[in-house]
Amino acid sequence: MGGMWGNNLKLSIFGESHGPGIGIVIDGLKAGIKLDFDEIKREMQRRAPGNSKLSSSRKEKDEFKIISGYFNGKTSGSPLCAIIFNSNQRSKDYEKTKDIPRPGHADYTGYVKYYAANDYRGGGHFSGRLTAPLVFAGAIAKQILQRENIFIGSHIKNIGGLEEGGFNPLDIGIDLLKELSYSSFPLLDSQMEKPMQDLILDAKKDLDSLGGIIETAIINLPAGIGSPFFDSIESRLSHMLFSIPAVKGLEFGQGFNMARLKGSQANDEYYMDGDKVKTYTNNNGGILGGISNGNPIIFKTAFKPTPSIGKKQRSVDLSKNKNTSLEIQGRHDPCIVPRAVPVVEAAAALVILDLIMENDSSY
Amino acid sequence: MGGMWGNNLKLSIFGESHGPGIGIVIDGLKAGIKLDFDEIKREMQRRAPGNSKLSSSRKEKDEFKIISGYFNGKTSGSPLCAIIFNSNQRSKDYEKTKDIPRPGHADYTGYVKYYAANDYRGGGHFSGRLTAPLVFAGAIAKQILQRENIFIGSHIKNIGGLEEGGFNPLDIGIDLLKELSYSSFPLLDSQMEKPMQDLILDAKKDLDSLGGIIETAIINLPAGIGSPFFDSIESRLSHMLFSIPAVKGLEFGQGFNMARLKGSQANDEYYMDGDKVKTYTNNNGGILGGISNGNPIIFKTAFKPTPSIGKKQRSVDLSKNKNTSLEIQGRHDPCIVPRAVPVVEAAAALVILDLIMENDSSY
Amino acid sequence: MGGMWGNNLKLSIFGESHGPGIGIVIDGLKAGIKLDFDEIKREMQRRAPGNSKLSSSRKEKDEFKIISGYFNGKTSGSPLCAIIFNSNQRSKDYEKTKDIPRPGHADYTGYVKYYAANDYRGGGHFSGRLTAPLVFAGAIAKQILQRENIFIGSHIKNIGGLEEGGFNPLDIGIDLLKELSYSSFPLLDSQMEKPMQDLILDAKKDLDSLGGIIETAIINLPAGIGSPFFDSIESRLSHMLFSIPAVKGLEFGQGFNMARLKGSQANDEYYMDGDKVKTYTNNNGGILGGISNGNPIIFKTAFKPTPSIGKKQRSVDLSKNKNTSLEIQGRHDPCIVPRAVPVVEAAAALVILDLIMENDSSY
Amino acid sequence: MGGMWGNNLKLSIFGESHGPGIGIVIDGLKAGIKLDFDEIKREMQRRAPGNSKLSSSRKEKDEFKIISGYFNGKTSGSPLCAIIFNSNQRSKDYEKTKDIPRPGHADYTGYVKYYAANDYRGGGHFSGRLTAPLVFAGAIAKQILQRENIFIGSHIKNIGGLEEGGFNPLDIGIDLLKELSYSSFPLLDSQMEKPMQDLILDAKKDLDSLGGIIETAIINLPAGIGSPFFDSIESRLSHMLFSIPAVKGLEFGQGFNMARLKGSQANDEYYMDGDKVKTYTNNNGGILGGISNGNPIIFKTAFKPTPSIGKKQRSVDLSKNKNTSLEIQGRHDPCIVPRAVPVVEAAAALVILDLIMENDSSY
Repeated sequence: MGGMWGNNLKLSIFGESHGPGIGIVIDGLKAGIKLDFDEIKREMQRRAPGNSKLSSSRKEKDEFKIISGYFNGKTSGSPLCAIIFNSNQRSKDYEKTKDIPRPGHADYTGYVKYYAANDYRGGGHFSGRLTAPLVFAGAIAKQILQRENIFIGSHIKNIGGLEEGGFNPLDIGIDLLKELSYSSFPLLDSQMEKPMQDLILDAKKDLDSLGGIIETAIINLPAGIGSPFFDSIESRLSHMLFSIPAVKGLEFGQGFNMARLKGSQANDEYYMDGDKVKTYTNNNGGILGGISNGNPIIFKTAFKPTPSIGKKQRSVDLSKNKNTSLEIQGRHDPCIVPRAVPVVEAAAALVILDLIMENDSSY
Repeated sequence: MGGMWGNNLKLSIFGESHGPGIGIVIDGLKAGIKLDFDEIKREMQRRAPGNSKLSSSRKEKDEFKIISGYFNGKTSGSPLCAIIFNSNQRSKDYEKTKDIPRPGHADYTGYVKYYAANDYRGGGHFSGRLTAPLVFAGAIAKQILQRENIFIGSHIKNIGGLEEGGFNPLDIGIDLLKELSYSSFPLLDSQMEKPMQDLILDAKKDLDSLGGIIETAIINLPAGIGSPFFDSIESRLSHMLFSIPAVKGLEFGQGFNMARLKGSQANDEYYMDGDKVKTYTNNNGGILGGISNGNPIIFKTAFKPTPSIGKKQRSVDLSKNKNTSLEIQGRHDPCIVPRAVPVVEAAAALVILDLIMENDSSY
Repeated sequence: MGGMWGNNLKLSIFGESHGPGIGIVIDGLKAGIKLDFDEIKREMQRRAPGNSKLSSSRKEKDEFKIISGYFNGKTSGSPLCAIIFNSNQRSKDYEKTKDIPRPGHADYTGYVKYYAANDYRGGGHFSGRLTAPLVFAGAIAKQILQRENIFIGSHIKNIGGLEEGGFNPLDIGIDLLKELSYSSFPLLDSQMEKPMQDLILDAKKDLDSLGGIIETAIINLPAGIGSPFFDSIESRLSHMLFSIPAVKGLEFGQGFNMARLKGSQANDEYYMDGDKVKTYTNNNGGILGGISNGNPIIFKTAFKPTPSIGKKQRSVDLSKNKNTSLEIQGRHDPCIVPRAVPVVEAAAALVILDLIMENDSSY
Repeated sequence: MGGMWGNNLKLSIFGESHGPGIGIVIDGLKAGIKLDFDEIKREMQRRAPGNSKLSSSRKEKDEFKIISGYFNGKTSGSPLCAIIFNSNQRSKDYEKTKDIPRPGHADYTGYVKYYAANDYRGGGHFSGRLTAPLVFAGAIAKQILQRENIFIGSHIKNIGGLEEGGFNPLDIGIDLLKELSYSSFPLLDSQMEKPMQDLILDAKKDLDSLGGIIETAIINLPAGIGSPFFDSIESRLSHMLFSIPAVKGLEFGQGFNMARLKGSQANDEYYMDGDKVKTYTNNNGGILGGISNGNPIIFKTAFKPTPSIGKKQRSVDLSKNKNTSLEIQGRHDPCIVPRAVPVVEAAAALVILDLIMENDSSY
């Protein structure tokens, strides 16, 4: 289980890191939508490794092939399937350590759940590489949302504890989000780029890795999207965001800081701006009772450090039931956060599109 | 939408705070389960208001009536429906402010989404009161899990910024969790009780409110439960937990602190304890790749301060499109956190039971 | 399982024939819909027993109580729950035969599936009485569809082998369907009423029962509703219709007769009527590739004879593992078909509304 | 929509007849299952065209490529994706008639639903060719069921009105079902082969086509599988079976004949056979209250004649809003029924496996 998702827009993901390919089926796209493939490629390029010294040196072209659902330059209304055929794997890297679970990875839990039958090469189906088809689908969702003037963008809020300021929660422009999306290391404060990147390069030199926090905004979402309880925007977004490997925390608006505020500080008071209802603050991250209130939706996602590190680590040999150690070889990201930015945005776009489609019925 | 949930165990919640009643349908319970109704009542009592000076003085008996699915002292295998008929409402409290959305509440978003047709009295279907049927269902799930030796317990980690230590992530006993469940203000460090409660009483005196953080542990869950991606334990738990009104943040294991750790610090290294695979640390909160690894599942849930405060607040009159102010009357909780503890546990129990049922097939 | 249904309009049914009550939760109704309760009651009255010498003499008032989701004379947008509290049960009728499964009923299969913990009184959750909440929900769906000019109606096509003609598949008017809905024994040919009813009364006198066939039409459904494969109109309708106790056969358009036709006879050829695409015939019952083509949707549902008969029948005593016989006491319908008409229509209305809601998105 | 299905075993189908390929994702297969690929190929060969003068002369090799979910000779527990890349299409056959909907096909309904953006070549996503991945998935389900001794088999009951007898509803052996599965024209009475095949060849000569009826049995399914109402075996099987293109009728056990029987004839009376509960008859097709009773599950599926016929037919030109006619070129099946046999069985196997997985939980 775990490979299918969605109510109005449905996804089915599949594939393993070192198998023939990875892919996704998207069901529920309206017929007749012209897709901007350059834009999809750009989004996938944002996620792809090998683009900078901050990321893995693996070259994965991540070229997708459309198998179905697109005809004569438009979506056909039928399930759209896209596959990225794998290449440039060094599967042998994994043979000798197949019984030695890498700490922080899903090797051990996959081994238990799947009775040692799981594809252990490069994490198999657990690989972060499976986020490539998610970015593909999210890029389509983004295009559809943008036609409704809904934009999603992010910046790196924190790398290894080094933190920059956040979005102005009531005033985020399309231009800012677009600009961020064109940066491979999106920051609100360009002064932070060097110290953050140095931290990553230091970790890399130490054969170690770093985590971080991404802050994301969804703007121009009309009030009235979402539902209370099991289809709250928070529920639906969190479900998808925690599907992304390495995500361990999520907060909306003031999030954990809410614990430190009083009600009189936390409540977003209302005022009229002409005939529009507005709030003085946006501590709730644009969501009340699970439903959008017209403010930017703002959330922060915490990523753990890349589990793959070159340092010697203690582990066990599952085939021999005894202690051992391992030093992970291979070309790994010292910090996954920059490449995770488009993944978080894709996840958000898919959820928001699904929710908007629900709301759109006139019956 | 938003009222139905679940894959193997399915829920349907309904009701409004000031309507005839609130309730839940539970489909998927095995036939032949003898329920301990005293224990269910105890759980519901933990959530009920009116039990201390820290909570609302409303007296809601929260007596449930079983409508179906229970026969001759056992579950019948058919959908189990339970209803709590409402009483002791002061619906008129809400008439005069029906067009003035209370800041921090869902009044405005419900008004927009439901074209002003929603039941505005006491939050209607958005009311925290809807968590009573969730606790009812969760109490059943807890009983079933406990027969498998799986226990869920929580402590109040933070009230208004005042914070105590956390669970020992590798060593949490059944006795501790049971003891916590019998406390109306569960803490690991009893020294914190007075200062935390004083903080709440101060806020109450100021006609204000406080938020906080609950830390929860699920122990003795076998390794191998959950799935990668869309059925990860984190995805499924977060979906349910963010359904609880007022939750704005969630983290598993080290959560947001992961951003400050290096991979060599964050990874949970393995060792053999006899023929059992163990880890030296539990920074991942018992979950890797969305699947349990046998360690306690540990997560923290952040609650915002109760939006209902007596202090004068700025708002708008939606019927007149103009600014106004309001002072919320009524009997409200100065801090919802103590009453939210059994709700968080119920939510977790329901998710874990659903996931275990999936894993149990031999085909 | 088995109690929840739907994609855009979701249902949760619950209850047992001789328990406290039976009911339904409907999630997904738009807010602000004014319901015509007289019309809902009329639909439920069509299903209720005790209205004629052709049906059971049990008096079930089937008065529903709205528990949630309806406020100030309109749907509130939240889950609408309605309950019919039970009365006039003679539960003791069932005590002495609780270990002797009635042939044709679900007594034995329920006993096996639910480990003898199922409510055996009057069929428990398997009772045809559970169709009352379905008719309640269907009556709401019908009202919503009628505002779009979509009407659903039926006639009794066959009782115990005695058969009348069918709808003109290309020309069915609103007036005809309305007229049929006001008859307790709806026929196209009034000459058939006496012979069909005599057949039922003969069976009743013989302590026996009869089955029959209902033909149903859905008119003015626009072309383009439904989907290929797993959301085909046939798939979705059949799923719901076979949920109705006693249904054993279903055919769309020419159905089984298709086996006797040649392609040149079966194909519905096209012509232009002004700027409208029409067909010369409607052998496909208004559905091609799972999608409506603008013709009336026409289907026939076969019901088995009421399993409860007074005649002595051979059975077994499950508590003693030995053969026995039983004569079913009680007030049973000699033929369920007339009372099943509104149930079939309700089922169809719910499916069509769910499908239309899906199609309505502009994204 | 329409491309995803399942509760415990989930499917996602995709592809178009003349696009790059067609395929399926199967999620929920247990890890560690060794698949018999020869057997899968044999099942797919039963469905493939070009094997006899009774079917289309198109040569479709239907070679599948496993993209994911199978590793080291066993299922890996992750989603299994298989693709059949298309070849040997004559897409140009369809260009000139793209605006002229073929009677009996989904051309017109697809045109309306998808705003003329659907892939019209060879029926696109509506093509019967999409049943190839279904047979692939069904062949896997069959293997898993057979390990539990559950077998599924069928015979051709009716071709163009010519009908043979049916299964003995209480006594169907594994050997008979296996034997039928090795025949390309499976019959209980070999005397019927020539007259039925002659009828098909006559229709072919006339540029016409025939429909028919398939009778299917599922044997050794234990009592207690399925649920009342929305997860009844009939509901779940019918949902899947009506997904198969060209199916227009379905009946379980005596089905439509139930309308002609009295209760005393239709009820399956019980007796003890040692300590086993048995029935004297099997008029209910092995299902009571939606749940299996241990008897063979028996159902009949009615197929309409292949809509593609060479005879001149009346149609319209949608681009010009005027009447026209067409003669369909190409290599079409004069009768789809023989090739539909493995499709019906695959559909049944998938549903039964899904239902058994649900029932298997011990919680």
